[in-house]
Amino acid sequence: MSVRTPDPYPGWLSEDDLFEARNRLPMVYVEAVPVRLDPLGYVNEVGLLLQADDDGAMVRTLVSGRVLYRETVRAALLRHLEKDLGNFALPQLPISPVPCTVAEYFPSPSQTGFTDERQHAVALVYVIPVTGECSPRQDALELSWMTPQEALSPMVQNEFAGGRGDILRQALAFAGIAG
Amino acid sequence: MSVRTPDPYPGWLSEDDLFEARNRLPMVYVEAVPVRLDPLGYVNEVGLLLQADDDGAMVRTLVSGRVLYRETVRAALLRHLEKDLGNFALPQLPISPVPCTVAEYFPSPSQTGFTDERQHAVALVYVIPVTGECSPRQDALELSWMTPQEALSPMVQNEFAGGRGDILRQALAFAGIAG
Amino acid sequence: MSVRTPDPYPGWLSEDDLFEARNRLPMVYVEAVPVRLDPLGYVNEVGLLLQADDDGAMVRTLVSGRVLYRETVRAALLRHLEKDLGNFALPQLPISPVPCTVAEYFPSPSQTGFTDERQHAVALVYVIPVTGECSPRQDALELSWMTPQEALSPMVQNEFAGGRGDILRQALAFAGIAG
Amino acid sequence: MSVRTPDPYPGWLSEDDLFEARNRLPMVYVEAVPVRLDPLGYVNEVGLLLQADDDGAMVRTLVSGRVLYRETVRAALLRHLEKDLGNFALPQLPISPVPCTVAEYFPSPSQTGFTDERQHAVALVYVIPVTGECSPRQDALELSWMTPQEALSPMVQNEFAGGRGDILRQALAFAGIAG
Repeated sequence: MSVRTPDPYPGWLSEDDLFEARNRLPMVYVEAVPVRLDPLGYVNEVGLLLQADDDGAMVRTLVSGRVLYRETVRAALLRHLEKDLGNFALPQLPISPVPCTVAEYFPSPSQTGFTDERQHAVALVYVIPVTGECSPRQDALELSWMTPQEALSPMVQNEFAGGRGDILRQALAFAGIAG
Repeated sequence: MSVRTPDPYPGWLSEDDLFEARNRLPMVYVEAVPVRLDPLGYVNEVGLLLQADDDGAMVRTLVSGRVLYRETVRAALLRHLEKDLGNFALPQLPISPVPCTVAEYFPSPSQTGFTDERQHAVALVYVIPVTGECSPRQDALELSWMTPQEALSPMVQNEFAGGRGDILRQALAFAGIAG
Repeated sequence: MSVRTPDPYPGWLSEDDLFEARNRLPMVYVEAVPVRLDPLGYVNEVGLLLQADDDGAMVRTLVSGRVLYRETVRAALLRHLEKDLGNFALPQLPISPVPCTVAEYFPSPSQTGFTDERQHAVALVYVIPVTGECSPRQDALELSWMTPQEALSPMVQNEFAGGRGDILRQALAFAGIAG
Repeated sequence: MSVRTPDPYPGWLSEDDLFEARNRLPMVYVEAVPVRLDPLGYVNEVGLLLQADDDGAMVRTLVSGRVLYRETVRAALLRHLEKDLGNFALPQLPISPVPCTVAEYFPSPSQTGFTDERQHAVALVYVIPVTGECSPRQDALELSWMTPQEALSPMVQNEFAGGRGDILRQALAFAGIAG
């Protein structure tokens, strides 16, 4: 980021520059809770990813990723849904740009309760119905569909890191499910 | 409503009793703004009904109707969508029970700006994507699909009665469209 | 409700007529979760009422009540807040008419999980900051202020009836607090 | 941003680095529409700033600014409200972190309709009641309080730049006001 050469596609930061930026600026993120709905709109199932973290421990995650320079929130959401659930998931993007909740991740503990040691990220969270076939992303071991009750159970909640179990709770509360 | 005989399906009030109730109690309503979305979730088209009012004048309306005794809001929404758009509209009911706006209709002018000479009604309003084939209801002359800009144009806005044009405005503002 | 005599203030149904109506029509309700906020808007404390139910058992309740004929949702909210918290509570009514959640109570178990043996009620739920002095209503034994964590603890949750503990959960999730 | 020296307060980017970052990453912004409410929560007045843009032209603006590294959305909102309205405005920060709308500004025309030639910014927009005395910020010529109808009039709408008049429309629609 130190040389002001014109850049044909400036959304791609070098790894070094992205590392730097993550220590200087809040990053814009989108997160999605994929769900399967019944015909009346009630949540039947929630899709959760299981993957290895940097230390090799298994953690539950949501669909999640950065919004690139000049990318809309909706385009970022679709890109990350396709990356994490495959090209045949048929996600229904939200009518409203307003997220169901906003999660603020900080590199160290804070009032928000959400942590991400890599960065300060402001994540717009959406509940996204999918109607197609989903396949887990390459770096994920598994995509599990479970009932809201299972997803909110202590066992599954303990598999989340950085407070992300609370995001799932808030997303399901938005859908009318408290647990 | 005057005789306390057990009633096997008490949701059906007689016409007389419904007339009485409408002069004594606020009625629970649902209203829906049917939309067609592009793959990113942007609103391409809005579906508006055109029907004759009691005086024979043509008015624009939204999908709208009463919630019956022991009926959920979601079931009422689906019932009225099927009644007004036909059985092949494939409406996507909302994930959240929270409406995009609440419209309070009163029999005489009030702070809310919404009027319905028949009753005091509290309407939960939802924006509902439809993906199937829609056919207008029997008592409607026409179901028109138009762009948000057309729907918000003064000409179309003037065809609404009771302030319902403002509900459309609020619903589209919720979808990120101001006009 | 059986006699069509003009009524100067038709919002007051007789006890008999209200009993009848409650078996025929969904009732419009408002519910409020009173909170005390810190200067940044984080919820410090939640106000919960403790009162005796019809069988003399102690139950936790939220501020709650019916919307009368020709009364706006906001006026009903203010009236019930004053009734339950006194005239010096200084509640801040919401900017938006959109509730944080909608709770549908049915006289028998249903998909919604909320029950009220007296009636079918559709309740618009709001989180309401109060800044003044609160005193519990006459028929309440106590108004308790507790932290969100205390309010969401199993002990307090068990004191609610009809699923109202879940409404508190949803209201706090709306405020960014999952528990 | 090119030297990895430890930085005691890395939220302060140099002007150069901020210039660079603005060409590489979406920036997190908060925007606020200050309002005065009546006791029932209806919007009486909207506060709009009038300031000179880079070319010396007068433009209407909302309270607006960047979220700094390690700053919460709420703290950023309070900081910018104090900067723009003074220290005695007594703003009431929102209970929920969920904005009333999300505005995506791009350096060139896009699907979102919002432009900011300096940067790609994702702004979380809030309607903020203020109860105290407001004084305009140093670089603003004027803070004007007007009715929602005045604020939505074509004359005032034309004084906004970059699509910000639409944000005001969406914020007021959220408050139940369509115009």
